[in-house]
Amino acid sequence: MSILIQSVLVNGKVSDIRIRDTYIEMIAPTLSPEDGEEILDGRDKAAVPGFVNAHTHAAMTLFRGFADDMELKPWLEKKIWPAEATLTEEDVYIGTRLACLEMIRTGTTLFNDMYWHLPGAVKAVESMGIRAVLSAVFIDLFDAEKRRKQIEENLHYLSEFENHSPLVRIALAPHAIYTVSQESLEWIRDVAESRNLLIHIHLSETRQEVDDCLKAHGVRPVEYLARIGLLSDRLFAAHCNWLNESEMDLLVEHGVHLVHNPVSNLKLAVGKQIFPYRALSRRGASILLGTDGCSSNNNLDMLETAKFAALYQKWQSGDPTILPAGETLRLLTVNGYQAFRVGSGKLAPGEPADLVLIDLNDPQNVPLYNLDSNLIYSINGGAVDTTLCNGKILMKEKHVPDEDTIIAEAHRVAKKFAEMG
Amino acid sequence: MSILIQSVLVNGKVSDIRIRDTYIEMIAPTLSPEDGEEILDGRDKAAVPGFVNAHTHAAMTLFRGFADDMELKPWLEKKIWPAEATLTEEDVYIGTRLACLEMIRTGTTLFNDMYWHLPGAVKAVESMGIRAVLSAVFIDLFDAEKRRKQIEENLHYLSEFENHSPLVRIALAPHAIYTVSQESLEWIRDVAESRNLLIHIHLSETRQEVDDCLKAHGVRPVEYLARIGLLSDRLFAAHCNWLNESEMDLLVEHGVHLVHNPVSNLKLAVGKQIFPYRALSRRGASILLGTDGCSSNNNLDMLETAKFAALYQKWQSGDPTILPAGETLRLLTVNGYQAFRVGSGKLAPGEPADLVLIDLNDPQNVPLYNLDSNLIYSINGGAVDTTLCNGKILMKEKHVPDEDTIIAEAHRVAKKFAEMG
Repeated sequence: MSILIQSVLVNGKVSDIRIRDTYIEMIAPTLSPEDGEEILDGRDKAAVPGFVNAHTHAAMTLFRGFADDMELKPWLEKKIWPAEATLTEEDVYIGTRLACLEMIRTGTTLFNDMYWHLPGAVKAVESMGIRAVLSAVFIDLFDAEKRRKQIEENLHYLSEFENHSPLVRIALAPHAIYTVSQESLEWIRDVAESRNLLIHIHLSETRQEVDDCLKAHGVRPVEYLARIGLLSDRLFAAHCNWLNESEMDLLVEHGVHLVHNPVSNLKLAVGKQIFPYRALSRRGASILLGTDGCSSNNNLDMLETAKFAALYQKWQSGDPTILPAGETLRLLTVNGYQAFRVGSGKLAPGEPADLVLIDLNDPQNVPLYNLDSNLIYSINGGAVDTTLCNGKILMKEKHVPDEDTIIAEAHRVAKKFAEMG
Repeated sequence: MSILIQSVLVNGKVSDIRIRDTYIEMIAPTLSPEDGEEILDGRDKAAVPGFVNAHTHAAMTLFRGFADDMELKPWLEKKIWPAEATLTEEDVYIGTRLACLEMIRTGTTLFNDMYWHLPGAVKAVESMGIRAVLSAVFIDLFDAEKRRKQIEENLHYLSEFENHSPLVRIALAPHAIYTVSQESLEWIRDVAESRNLLIHIHLSETRQEVDDCLKAHGVRPVEYLARIGLLSDRLFAAHCNWLNESEMDLLVEHGVHLVHNPVSNLKLAVGKQIFPYRALSRRGASILLGTDGCSSNNNLDMLETAKFAALYQKWQSGDPTILPAGETLRLLTVNGYQAFRVGSGKLAPGEPADLVLIDLNDPQNVPLYNLDSNLIYSINGGAVDTTLCNGKILMKEKHVPDEDTIIAEAHRVAKKFAEMG
């Protein structure tokens, strides 16, 4: 099966793009349509790689707007945790489908997820055709029995879903150093190495986490993970707000992928600093962006997240030249594709056909002096017209086939939580 | 002429809204259609007041993406000022139409503008049917001859446009204390009083402005304006980032309207603090939000601006409960309507028919636990489905009649600037 995108702005020129099966086969000024080929009109559109959301909890989209403007502790204890305790696998399926719908609409084609009821998420992602790294939250609260159960569950998920579909990869997700024992972290380290798995963790999100780690282990969080041997280029560490210089050196030396979540960090007011971008990028760190879950964002729009990232860093550093538009865009394309090893993050022959068409006649895209500037500073995910992933058209002219069903299902499930108050 | 919006979510209930001429006549559970009445289907939509953008330079939408990621001085001197020097009245007409198009699309029905070639802006606003307070930038650079010319120009604009249309009000716009002489500020004060005009100024945007004022006048900017007698409830002061306690007292005591522009302030990295919200709101200040011009934002989406405002204040104060969603929404509705004296900013009989219908089936609006939360934290202007201003439908189901022409004209004008590099 092949797709021809005609007369689209790609890499600065108007060209045709031919997609064969799952890959970009050719980009050239004019290509003749083949028999039976699906044609997309690319006029007044720009093709860019689909975006990578490197940290989220997709099914929490069900909790969008469920509880906002609260202190962290009552927010978790009175709202989020009681609601999560009632979640079923079916809820996670429906919530993850809603998340995928929003991601497809806003141009994301790969996301890195950590949540409960993994089978529901796998089923949802496979039904939507998006690419995902899925992991079951691993929390043992330093309890041996819980550890045993979590290990058993993870091994079961691996055996069931590790090679289930070309779109879904299963990873391991130790929630954080303050919820997972050293024994479990060591088990995760060994299994990830022997089975070649990615690892997804929350790291140094708040000052509290650093202080507690110093008290419990005598070292800072990154040093603690280094001691256990968990730092490597298979590790994706979300947040990384509170790092000292030697922790930054350690992270970069081991090739850890660092996921900045500016919207969530600002909204939850996690502390006086968030993500030391300049110090990390100077060291050559692998830096990605994430939305975090919808309960703390409250959307999955990577272009909005990118704008928050760029503007916060400019303001915080006092330097309007830091994180310019092109560099910011690379955080959600090139850096994401390379970190997750799905290609170069550029549109070229041989690359996976994960791409989106941006409407150049969206008023927020006019004038068009600089596409990168418009992408990062002006438009948002609403200017995405068409989304392809793995060579399949998931959205065409802003229409996703299953949209009405997904929304109706989400409204139905949300009633349960609304009644909890 | 009357319009009936059927089965729309308004003030927490599903009701019908009847609009007669320019006002909301009635809101009730069920209203029978009248002969010849235009019917809007409000199902799966919520009606909220149109938003107020209290500080912008609309025609600068032509410079969206023209120059980003630069230091302030070269940005102004090498890019913005040379480009502005070539602007014609026709360019301003086209640029302001593009801005109005974006505002209508994103739910803004009233904006407070300051720019060059006022007649072009008046013509544009009248053609688009949006409400605006328009003012000609007043800059004399402390030169008597320039002052004479600026006064003459402003008097001419007042005589020509003061009662030109019910949608446009003309205000006076001393650019800032560092570009306008005391003599001119005194002239503006007197004319504003005698003709009952609003005044629009940039105030305490950067630390530099405060330091320079202390050097030149021995007092801080707000104190300087107080001495001249310019502080009053007809004054709209944009930015107000660098204020001490006694300046805040002065501003609130005189009822000055303070316009926070979070996106512009962050993007231009104006200094270590922006807009002391908590200290001002505790004093009962009239606080509004603005986008600033598209050369420093780069869009006119008030819902995006509101999210930046709320999240920055949470993070900066370390308190996630500050600026909750409902309070943030009031900054762009209730506070805006009251400051500009166009009604209460609530949807009720007798209020002006300036309102927007929000798509509740936009995936970013699902689930719907709390409309205010979704408006401020999740959706953006892209979820606006229909926009009415002064009883006229300006956009219906995301379609603005003149859209294609406006975009084609803007692309044509932008070519001139693109060639300047």
